[in-house]
Amino acid sequence: MLGIDPGLTRCGVGVVDVASDRSARLVHVGVVRSDPGEPIERRLATIAAGIRAVIDEHAPAVVAVERVFSQHNRQSVMGTAQASGIALLIAGERGLAAATHTPTEVKAAVTGYGAADKRQVQLMVARILRLDEIPQPADAADALALALCHAWRGGGQAATTGAQLTPAQRAWADAERLARR
Amino acid sequence: MLGIDPGLTRCGVGVVDVASDRSARLVHVGVVRSDPGEPIERRLATIAAGIRAVIDEHAPAVVAVERVFSQHNRQSVMGTAQASGIALLIAGERGLAAATHTPTEVKAAVTGYGAADKRQVQLMVARILRLDEIPQPADAADALALALCHAWRGGGQAATTGAQLTPAQRAWADAERLARR
Repeated sequence: MLGIDPGLTRCGVGVVDVASDRSARLVHVGVVRSDPGEPIERRLATIAAGIRAVIDEHAPAVVAVERVFSQHNRQSVMGTAQASGIALLIAGERGLAAATHTPTEVKAAVTGYGAADKRQVQLMVARILRLDEIPQPADAADALALALCHAWRGGGQAATTGAQLTPAQRAWADAERLARR
Repeated sequence: MLGIDPGLTRCGVGVVDVASDRSARLVHVGVVRSDPGEPIERRLATIAAGIRAVIDEHAPAVVAVERVFSQHNRQSVMGTAQASGIALLIAGERGLAAATHTPTEVKAAVTGYGAADKRQVQLMVARILRLDEIPQPADAADALALALCHAWRGGGQAATTGAQLTPAQRAWADAERLARR
């Protein structure tokens, strides 16, 4: 399970291995950085190359990306949205299932409490993965929280999107999607 | 010059050839569509494939993308931002110069009036390119307006970003960027 906390300056990437008993093991954690002094098209290419390298090395089955909201009215939101698009694009081009989760979903999944603060989430991530320290920087810990969230919400066994579904699963997911319209 | 009006459901793409006397010729205009019923990662992959196909066929030197703002507080803004990220990523990965322009810049460049309405812009695009009809749908005409805007603002001769610069041009652009901080 690959979790991605999208960002243009720092894009958190975390890979965890989650067993059927919900126990989890840290596989990889890091941050892909791009230089704010570079043109946007080269920054996005740097982020894309970093994400592809993680997928090449760790071959995750699913990619979970934090959902970005437009109500944060800051310039950086657009860069974050662009980085999230890149992460989802790469998943799509590799034929990997992808999913997005809101920060509230991630907090609730990891701490049991949707309004938990960032520090609580990071402490729980370290505890769940039996790490001596909180992964740094924060974007890296957030990426791990996303991966754990997705695995625990059933994403590991039954993702509702993506190319990893069996034909029967896909037919079921399509029927569900139509019913929701 | 490739102009892209980013969008998830309809992404306008327009290629124009602009001469040094500012006269312009239509090379290609179209819309890349993705199915709203598909998962986001596959929609973005469809948009990316469509943009790459246009670049493969027409080999533009520069890619101009409409700048997306977060103040439009609609769900679709995030999809638009993601699509713009994909367009810029592809430019970066192909080593093409890229630029973004605001809708106001595009309107001012094409009609001489930054508050022109969409219809006026479309009429001017058709007139500039000596077309009998306004290109349909609107996203396609907007993409052509972007390409014309970028060419006329000097983007064809002296793009300030991207891999097409000579080492001397790049050093100059870097110095300018530093001076602006």
